[in-house]
Amino acid sequence: MSEKLRGNILVTGANRGIGLELVRQLAQSIGENAHIYACCREIEGPRAQALKNLSTPGKITLVKLDLSDEGSISSAVQAVSRNMEAGGLNLLINNAAINRPESPAPLSATGKQHMMDVYETNVVGPFLLVKMLLPLLQKAAEMDSEGDQMSCSRSAIVNISTLISSIEKCPESFHIAQMYPYRTSKAALNMLTRCHAEEFKRHNILVTAVHPGWVRTEMGGEKAPLTPEDSVAGMLSVMLSLSNKHSGMLLDWQGNTIPW
Amino acid sequence: MSEKLRGNILVTGANRGIGLELVRQLAQSIGENAHIYACCREIEGPRAQALKNLSTPGKITLVKLDLSDEGSISSAVQAVSRNMEAGGLNLLINNAAINRPESPAPLSATGKQHMMDVYETNVVGPFLLVKMLLPLLQKAAEMDSEGDQMSCSRSAIVNISTLISSIEKCPESFHIAQMYPYRTSKAALNMLTRCHAEEFKRHNILVTAVHPGWVRTEMGGEKAPLTPEDSVAGMLSVMLSLSNKHSGMLLDWQGNTIPW
Ligand SMILES: NC(=O)c1ccc[n+]([C@@H]2O[C@H](COP(=O)([O-])OP(=O)(O)OC[C@H]3O[C@@H](n4cnc5c(N)ncnc54)[C@H](OP(=O)(O)O)[C@@H]3O)[C@@H](O)[C@H]2O)c1
Ligand SMILES: NC(=O)c1ccc[n+]([C@@H]2O[C@H](COP(=O)([O-])OP(=O)(O)OC[C@H]3O[C@@H](n4cnc5c(N)ncnc54)[C@H](OP(=O)(O)O)[C@@H]3O)[C@@H](O)[C@H]2O)c1
Repeated sequence: MSEKLRGNILVTGANRGIGLELVRQLAQSIGENAHIYACCREIEGPRAQALKNLSTPGKITLVKLDLSDEGSISSAVQAVSRNMEAGGLNLLINNAAINRPESPAPLSATGKQHMMDVYETNVVGPFLLVKMLLPLLQKAAEMDSEGDQMSCSRSAIVNISTLISSIEKCPESFHIAQMYPYRTSKAALNMLTRCHAEEFKRHNILVTAVHPGWVRTEMGGEKAPLTPEDSVAGMLSVMLSLSNKHSGMLLDWQGNTIPW
Repeated sequence: MSEKLRGNILVTGANRGIGLELVRQLAQSIGENAHIYACCREIEGPRAQALKNLSTPGKITLVKLDLSDEGSISSAVQAVSRNMEAGGLNLLINNAAINRPESPAPLSATGKQHMMDVYETNVVGPFLLVKMLLPLLQKAAEMDSEGDQMSCSRSAIVNISTLISSIEKCPESFHIAQMYPYRTSKAALNMLTRCHAEEFKRHNILVTAVHPGWVRTEMGGEKAPLTPEDSVAGMLSVMLSLSNKHSGMLLDWQGNTIPW
């Protein structure tokens, strides 16, 4: 990456997996005045330790955020607003998500609570977070004098989706990973992405969904072929390349379009 | 329709709107030994009166079913099972749905509870109902000796979806009807349709999503161009025409494919 992402960037689920690696690489690559808001459920204790170990003085602020709790989302947004003072939010990366029950999550093992919980965290959480962060995203877009040019450096929402959110491609992947709650939630997140892209076009806020590849994390498991390093390097380079024509699309970590 | 749907047919949301018209036309067209299970939340009182007024002696059994209540789904399935005795379920029409808040349901008026409630009724309800009815659908498929030929007369699930479930077509309809909770729920229902189609192929159970058109009901409103009569006549003729190649697809009431 020769160009750099800049401004204020917020990442959810930042304490491990892809989210942690996003914060690590962003902290290394962003410019002087850029700042990262790294959100996680527990900002004290062992689960946040890897995030705290990233030695990037002054570049990262930890923010407590539980996406299944509306009050927590509201408090996090207030904390971020205060911290930013006159600034706006340039990039929101909705990365946090859950997959229940345990993979491959067959129909027989899946109940109502799994369906509801996964939707709450993977779709309703980002829905509320975007709604509450909208004034800050608008502010960032307005502070920029690039006309109607959209970009991840100006004002953008990137939703981490997945290949298996693709209804079209379901027959190819279904028998490996059934995951009813996860699949339905991510198809809904794709719809949310496209609705937000339509709605926020007038504010010059870009909205794109990105599939990280199959990545070696707690969620991805040990058999996954991609390291978080390679996945995130790919996604950040895709994010840098995004412009108006990518808003409302689903792309993979190499920039290829995935059908709905 | 020269051919007829036959066997045991279950319709949800049967007390008004499209569901009521489905029951009315089915009762008129099905053969001697066919039977309709007409499900609604209140089987006593004024809300079920129009359904009770359909004069079709012996053809319709009313079943109490609230899709937002797992216990109610379970009781309904038990009642249907007992009533069917040795028979199976040939056709399940997942028709009931809600749209919250009031149309056009802009982002500003939409909260967490709307998102959760609409998902619960429109997606999780059908998810649980299908899971519990699966043995009866399998039984119907097995009682038939048509090899791997699937049809709505043998064993099928028809999910009433909508044009605005299409992520692809979102930009065309978004500014008329925002409806975040409804759109995300119906995109998820489409994913559920395709997952079920994959999973139940081995049982010869057909699964298809159908868009009824924009129909004059409480949900569709007075400006809708289609009557329930015309919409349902179209959908029933589409259902009669469904075969293996339509499983896992989204079609409109005239049989045209809608992209995801
Ligand atoms: N790994 C893959 O192969 C793969 C493939 C396709 C898409 N994805 C997507 O990539 C994203 C990151 O996945 P990952 O592999 O890094 O998963 P992961 O290792 O399981 O990490 C998930 C992250 O989300 C956080 N989280 C879970 N529930 C939360 C809640 N209610 N509120 C706030 N944060 C919450 C977790 O925090 P805690 O530590 O507190 O639980 C953790 O930081 C997800 O959107 C996932 O769907 C991953
Ligand atoms: N009308 C349109 O233009 C249109 C367009 C596209 C798709 N659709 C779809 O077509 C289907 C039927 O719509 P409609 O226009 O006939 O809607 P409607 O007139 O509002 O009727 C909805 C039906 O669903 C039932 N229902 C709601 N919540 C329920 C629950 N928790 N448990 C059980 N039943 C419940 C209602 O029962 P109560 O009387 O007890 O509330 C009613 O019978 C829906 O799936 C809708 O999304 C409609």
